[in-house]
Amino acid sequence: MSHHTIDLANVKQIIAQIVAEHDIKSVAFVGCGASSSELYPGYYFLRDAAKQLRPFHYTASEFNQDTPAWVDETALVITCSLGGTTPETIEANHTAKTHGATVVAVTHAAGSALTEEADFTIVHGFEANYAAKIEKMGYVIALAVEVLNQTEGYEHYDAMIDGFDKIFDLAQAAAVSAQGGMAKQFAEQFKDDEVVYYMSSGASLDVAYSSSICLMMEMQWINSGSFHSGEYFHGPFEITDKDVPFVLLMNDGKTRKADARALTFLQRFDAKVAVVDAKDYALSGAIDGSVVTYFNPMLHTAVFRTYAEALADARSHPLTVRRYMWKLEY
Amino acid sequence: MSHHTIDLANVKQIIAQIVAEHDIKSVAFVGCGASSSELYPGYYFLRDAAKQLRPFHYTASEFNQDTPAWVDETALVITCSLGGTTPETIEANHTAKTHGATVVAVTHAAGSALTEEADFTIVHGFEANYAAKIEKMGYVIALAVEVLNQTEGYEHYDAMIDGFDKIFDLAQAAAVSAQGGMAKQFAEQFKDDEVVYYMSSGASLDVAYSSSICLMMEMQWINSGSFHSGEYFHGPFEITDKDVPFVLLMNDGKTRKADARALTFLQRFDAKVAVVDAKDYALSGAIDGSVVTYFNPMLHTAVFRTYAEALADARSHPLTVRRYMWKLEY
Repeated sequence: MSHHTIDLANVKQIIAQIVAEHDIKSVAFVGCGASSSELYPGYYFLRDAAKQLRPFHYTASEFNQDTPAWVDETALVITCSLGGTTPETIEANHTAKTHGATVVAVTHAAGSALTEEADFTIVHGFEANYAAKIEKMGYVIALAVEVLNQTEGYEHYDAMIDGFDKIFDLAQAAAVSAQGGMAKQFAEQFKDDEVVYYMSSGASLDVAYSSSICLMMEMQWINSGSFHSGEYFHGPFEITDKDVPFVLLMNDGKTRKADARALTFLQRFDAKVAVVDAKDYALSGAIDGSVVTYFNPMLHTAVFRTYAEALADARSHPLTVRRYMWKLEY
Repeated sequence: MSHHTIDLANVKQIIAQIVAEHDIKSVAFVGCGASSSELYPGYYFLRDAAKQLRPFHYTASEFNQDTPAWVDETALVITCSLGGTTPETIEANHTAKTHGATVVAVTHAAGSALTEEADFTIVHGFEANYAAKIEKMGYVIALAVEVLNQTEGYEHYDAMIDGFDKIFDLAQAAAVSAQGGMAKQFAEQFKDDEVVYYMSSGASLDVAYSSSICLMMEMQWINSGSFHSGEYFHGPFEITDKDVPFVLLMNDGKTRKADARALTFLQRFDAKVAVVDAKDYALSGAIDGSVVTYFNPMLHTAVFRTYAEALADARSHPLTVRRYMWKLEY
């Protein structure tokens, strides 16, 4: 297998140039839908590890409509859009620039509208394989790691860099191994369900969110909701029953206990549950324990993509079919 | 009508004592379920208005399991639990204290376990009326306003204080006016639905969340999901159809545009939608435009409570019935 990675030297150089010219105090991750969810792990990393930087995560319309007071030349705004055409996110670049902030756009589409007002652009892969599909998330986390390390310093920097060297091949192998077996099994078991809930925790929280609002609601027209495994016991668990299906993205990291507690309860009431467990793919065997928590969303995204593809096949409902998107002005 | 308000002098005094003794840099709002959602407006306020303070919002288990690097003597941790017995939130107090942070507990239960390790406790009302039910949220926002004003200063402080003087009576009157009419109409129209989605934006985002996970899933065993109105167009809107019910909590503030755009789309496809519009209750007529955004969740919570009560009546399923909570160890 060829070695898959991302251009970390470029990320390092971009951040070096930014911090040489600006006293960065706030870092905002701004996007919509799946892109918003792929920004979350970068936000999570800074929320967890930074002691001085001020991290924020916004859906783009809110950033534009209620622009926070701190958006000025001390702010770094990281925006994300796969096709580079999301209107609210393009507007977020403009909002940020109008207030003097620095913008890094992460997109698959070089030269797209998202790149026009951005100070820096990072172009990521997508089509090649499952590793390519998580490049976007990888670049976002790498930007977070670099800005932390180059401002206040970060104790586990080397472990993160080592993790980036391993996660893409690991996630690709995991996705391929899931593809034939677990993914097909999931598709057969869940293809007729009318509602499916998603849970996770830690850095993977928004993988549950995007699996719910994008893969289920948008791409399969299946009813869905998502929440943190730790919140399950404070409301959602009352809906638990044999015929209520759940997908649990289990973390191999600091918040595993929250996921495991939810699983124990689901199993106790014989609920229908599909588990994508990062431990099954030996995430913590490959990546240092000091940083493994942050790599879960990349693994979960790659593996669950194969589940969604298998479900789409089993339901004869391709992931690319839309009722409204691409067809209407709204 | 008697005038309902909260003890702002006590909040001011608590924060004065804290900032006299500590150089507060980070403010974390930590709770579970409904209490977590009632902390969100305080977090939203600081995320929006603070230029130096670092605001965070956590479900308690995550705060305990992956305790962030910045929890030290410069952190203020605001925890919340109605009955004061939520184990994860009690543990969050301990986590915070172990790391040297200052803890303010907001609870309805004086002397409860939540108050034991807290440096300060604020006891709020609940049973008396709808105004009392939003005291918890009011105290949380007031704590956020005071910590901002007493550290870096806040331009619209007087407008916020004036807003606190008005919001409780306004919300009480709004709830009572909804009770007979709109709430009953909602109950009749939605009582047989098997899934109901909730949307809002701005400071009210988590009112949609708690309406979904607590009032629907926990208290009515109705399937549900929630998301930001601005995210609706990036996934969830593909599920829109005549027979898919939505509740939209419309803000009378800066993010109204996001809510209005979602409503326009829902109406265009003749979707089933109940709207709780803060404008119908003249929120911005009573509260200054510079701060009205922050008061929406208090109004939405009071009014939608009557909708949930009416739904419970219409379904002969009291809001207090549980399958698992209070009955099992988990």
